[in-house]
Amino acid sequence: MVDDGATLGGRGERGVLAEVFAAYAGLPTDGVLVGPGDDTGLLAVPTGRVLATTDTVVRDRDWRDDWSTAQDVGVKVVTQNLADLAAMGGRGTGLLVALAAPPSLPLAWARGLAEGIGYAAGLAGVPVLGGDLSSTAGDAVLVAVTALGELADGVTAPVLRSGASPGDVLAVSGPLGRSGAGLELLLGGVTEARDEQERRLLDHHRRPLTDLAQGPSAARAGATAMIDVSDGLVRDGDRVARASGVALVLDPGAVDRLAGELVPALPLDRARRQVLSGGEEHELLATFPGDRSLPEGWRRLGQVLPVGSDGADAPGVWQDGARLDPATGGWDHFEG
Amino acid sequence: MVDDGATLGGRGERGVLAEVFAAYAGLPTDGVLVGPGDDTGLLAVPTGRVLATTDTVVRDRDWRDDWSTAQDVGVKVVTQNLADLAAMGGRGTGLLVALAAPPSLPLAWARGLAEGIGYAAGLAGVPVLGGDLSSTAGDAVLVAVTALGELADGVTAPVLRSGASPGDVLAVSGPLGRSGAGLELLLGGVTEARDEQERRLLDHHRRPLTDLAQGPSAARAGATAMIDVSDGLVRDGDRVARASGVALVLDPGAVDRLAGELVPALPLDRARRQVLSGGEEHELLATFPGDRSLPEGWRRLGQVLPVGSDGADAPGVWQDGARLDPATGGWDHFEG
Repeated sequence: MVDDGATLGGRGERGVLAEVFAAYAGLPTDGVLVGPGDDTGLLAVPTGRVLATTDTVVRDRDWRDDWSTAQDVGVKVVTQNLADLAAMGGRGTGLLVALAAPPSLPLAWARGLAEGIGYAAGLAGVPVLGGDLSSTAGDAVLVAVTALGELADGVTAPVLRSGASPGDVLAVSGPLGRSGAGLELLLGGVTEARDEQERRLLDHHRRPLTDLAQGPSAARAGATAMIDVSDGLVRDGDRVARASGVALVLDPGAVDRLAGELVPALPLDRARRQVLSGGEEHELLATFPGDRSLPEGWRRLGQVLPVGSDGADAPGVWQDGARLDPATGGWDHFEG
Repeated sequence: MVDDGATLGGRGERGVLAEVFAAYAGLPTDGVLVGPGDDTGLLAVPTGRVLATTDTVVRDRDWRDDWSTAQDVGVKVVTQNLADLAAMGGRGTGLLVALAAPPSLPLAWARGLAEGIGYAAGLAGVPVLGGDLSSTAGDAVLVAVTALGELADGVTAPVLRSGASPGDVLAVSGPLGRSGAGLELLLGGVTEARDEQERRLLDHHRRPLTDLAQGPSAARAGATAMIDVSDGLVRDGDRVARASGVALVLDPGAVDRLAGELVPALPLDRARRQVLSGGEEHELLATFPGDRSLPEGWRRLGQVLPVGSDGADAPGVWQDGARLDPATGGWDHFEG
């Protein structure tokens, strides 16, 4: 970050926007009929249906300035939003970006944020349609992104949380617990990676990038329910289980294999805990009919059972005959 | 606001969302294929094009808790967003609502906000598609709304800021300066209206409601450029003038007539200033071909001249041979 001493307040709204728009100049413009700079954007929607989601990140809750660059924050907030689209079987078609910050914020930070957003949006081929700039009275800094999208080619219906059926297989699109493990490293004072594994974990915490095409792949492969792991396997799995009225029963061996990927950066017990409860992962959790093979890259996590079987007497995520508590297995924005 | 002592932190994310969704239960669901509660919303877009805009309001910048209720804030943020759609010739089809607040925020405030949003959305017939809830580390409270929309029936192309031509007429869809005048009253200690005029001004500052159908009306009547007056006549007019490369020349008589509507709540000189610079009005400013009559309810403000004529030697808003300075005639979010 080149900090030239300029602030948002010194540059003024129009000056800041000029810098921000420059960071988005290289993005694709497919479908953008009216881009940033007018009252609203206008986006072509050839499929006749638009997916829409919004996610906000807040300084000192979702990132710390001493651990994350502005670019990191930009990547993270875009991934969060695009993963929600992927979890429906969709792909991004446009982003709206709102920044709220005090006038004293370094202009270089706003520029870095836009660069990070532009980088992640560019990887996914998604244009920026517009945004908003607001000043905050205290020192709060927030970035609220809205992502618009469409169901991907070959996906005819959105994959909801409510479609899991007994007999389905539970699977995940990639590793779990990386972001939580990275946060544990940071909290333990490891801000610089000492090996390749630590680097991967710290990177995934700071700027998660996942394979967003796995959502449409899963949808085309017949996924019956899907969610992105933003609040932890147990907590997000619990949402699928309750919406579908089923029990998701984890295979302890599968959990241990995922945990093993976090060792030795974390000891095995903490690695297991991160696999179950670590948030901000943004891999996809999905259920598939039991008679089909999983799409490439997906790992089997367990099975979907009817409530009442094998001692699973309520919808939820179960392991070894016990229901895993979503309240302690994940992150509640207000209960902590 | 019935404050039962509950807070966001005490109720937890799921509990808060249940209350919030209840406030939206009466909204229309036209076009909503997937509503709140899954990873994203899914909205039908029969026209094949979606308008999208986002606007954020921040406590102690955009409202003060001692002057505005939570319901007021909800109405205001919805009007801000829908007015942007109207200014393109559009109408709302869906809203996304993000609230960021400390865990100590009274639940009653969040409920009141949702009620205000539901009220304004209901007037406009717009469903809520989804949202986000985040906690802030300090005491910042922010509401970021994204509005999706479509060009209204009979509107074939969006009305941009850049389409004004010499020979056009400049007009506004209603009164100007009410919100700014209401703010002046509040700053002067008048928090309770003493007459009907003060009541209208305070109401428009706290919870602006404008006739959003005037945007599509203007578009159908051939409006060549349009913007909503969110930062003041001079500042927003300047944006149209620069985008179109023209001079907007105000008729002093028209400005005085608008100012007269703010008298005697304000003295005439301060009323004139509010007409020119008062923001958060959310009436529409548009240019129309000079040979047509204005749509019902619109008031003529002046004319569009080529740059270089009548001493208007630069794009901008002009009156009595002088260019009005957008920096002092309006509100810059960072220059103050």
